[in-house]
Amino acid sequence: MSRFGDATAVERVGEGRYRVELDGAFGFAEALNGGYLMAVLARAAVDASPHRHPVATCANFLRVAKAGPAEVRVEQRKTGRTATAAHVSLVQDDRVAVDALITTADLAPDAEPDWVGAPPSPPLPPVERCKHVEPSERDRGFADHVELHFDPATLGWLDGRPSGRPECRAWFRLRDPYEPDAFALALAVDALPPVVLNTGAKGWAPTVEMTWHMRAVPAPGLLELHGRGRMVTGGWFDEEVEVWDSAGRLVAQSRQLARVGRPPSR
Amino acid sequence: MSRFGDATAVERVGEGRYRVELDGAFGFAEALNGGYLMAVLARAAVDASPHRHPVATCANFLRVAKAGPAEVRVEQRKTGRTATAAHVSLVQDDRVAVDALITTADLAPDAEPDWVGAPPSPPLPPVERCKHVEPSERDRGFADHVELHFDPATLGWLDGRPSGRPECRAWFRLRDPYEPDAFALALAVDALPPVVLNTGAKGWAPTVEMTWHMRAVPAPGLLELHGRGRMVTGGWFDEEVEVWDSAGRLVAQSRQLARVGRPPSR
Repeated sequence: MSRFGDATAVERVGEGRYRVELDGAFGFAEALNGGYLMAVLARAAVDASPHRHPVATCANFLRVAKAGPAEVRVEQRKTGRTATAAHVSLVQDDRVAVDALITTADLAPDAEPDWVGAPPSPPLPPVERCKHVEPSERDRGFADHVELHFDPATLGWLDGRPSGRPECRAWFRLRDPYEPDAFALALAVDALPPVVLNTGAKGWAPTVEMTWHMRAVPAPGLLELHGRGRMVTGGWFDEEVEVWDSAGRLVAQSRQLARVGRPPSR
Repeated sequence: MSRFGDATAVERVGEGRYRVELDGAFGFAEALNGGYLMAVLARAAVDASPHRHPVATCANFLRVAKAGPAEVRVEQRKTGRTATAAHVSLVQDDRVAVDALITTADLAPDAEPDWVGAPPSPPLPPVERCKHVEPSERDRGFADHVELHFDPATLGWLDGRPSGRPECRAWFRLRDPYEPDAFALALAVDALPPVVLNTGAKGWAPTVEMTWHMRAVPAPGLLELHGRGRMVTGGWFDEEVEVWDSAGRLVAQSRQLARVGRPPSR
């Protein structure tokens, strides 16, 4: 039916224990995508909770996860009327690959914000003026399933002319088709190339810690991803992504702390 | 010597177990301050780590912590050359009050950023043009130890004239004296009154999840706190705080997801 749906499916095998089959298609040469892993963890957290939406997820990426079987462990820490908090881990080969805290709650699909800030600036150009980049062979799997249309102003690093600012902006959708939901948002907040490519860094930029918040139930259609960073220092950088939906609503916010990449070794 | 130093001291009593005596002075009528609790957790995480600085802290606030004895439990999840990740909990009366993931690493005190964004806008007025608010009786303890000088533009809520935007800005220091360090930063990122007071909300706004990043070793002197939110919806709001030091450097970033407050019941 849906590759992303299948790839994030969790099977309950015991109290707070879920069997998963990680799909190598949602990764690159180096590792499975962190957003994909957060989507898998969120499925288990929601299954184990009386609430439907992962409103707050913090994840520590400890070890590279590989395609194949793994287990998600959900330890409930507090269940309340408004929200449920859990400690959720992804375990593979008897080692913790991802350690997370996930809070679930219920967001009303038709909620209107009481207050919302201005949309991100600069705006994302219309999709027809954005650039779809054919993936390199090593990025093949991910790009076969995730469609990104980039703001050309943030693609200068591809031609050796980085913009000089840590930034990246793109339209996002799953090719499946799979309409935006909580789990697609988990993937979306980590789908952009690292913003530090535009300050001249090269190579893979491993995420150490990532937190994202689901703020609204997304409408069907394309999502806008607005990524930027505030500081690059001592080998560390932050990357914030705001996700806006086709109805013009802020649906997710993230921040990650990551290591500046090194060029891939030959 | 220093009340804040004493109030955050941890005593190792076993493998990954620390005894603490929580100090009611760092709280309000309703609860101990979340930043104070994060400072206590960070002390234990740093003690148990080969690294000195809590570069990433995610905390779920599950239950109100009270003044008095408590235990911090530190479970190492991965120790590496660059960083160490731990699952850290604050336990009081056999219940988990705060559940956290803390990554420690080493920041060079004299690091110069490779890239940094513009300072927050609008700037904070000079301290002599800011407003020191005499605390109400119920906020007495916290304000006896934490000195805040507010940008008057963000204090309208006090007179029933909120600015209409979720924002709050202030100069910060500990009265002790206690110069800024990693633990003072943990306190600083949660020291402001909730930004939603300026969109008309009243009362206590309980933090559900808070993540903060230490980005640089702070210089001695006053710290600038720049707080804002992006959206208030369905009873939830986000609050981001940037902390800049007296040398004009970005030293910490935070975001929390919290519940919009209700007026205190009579």
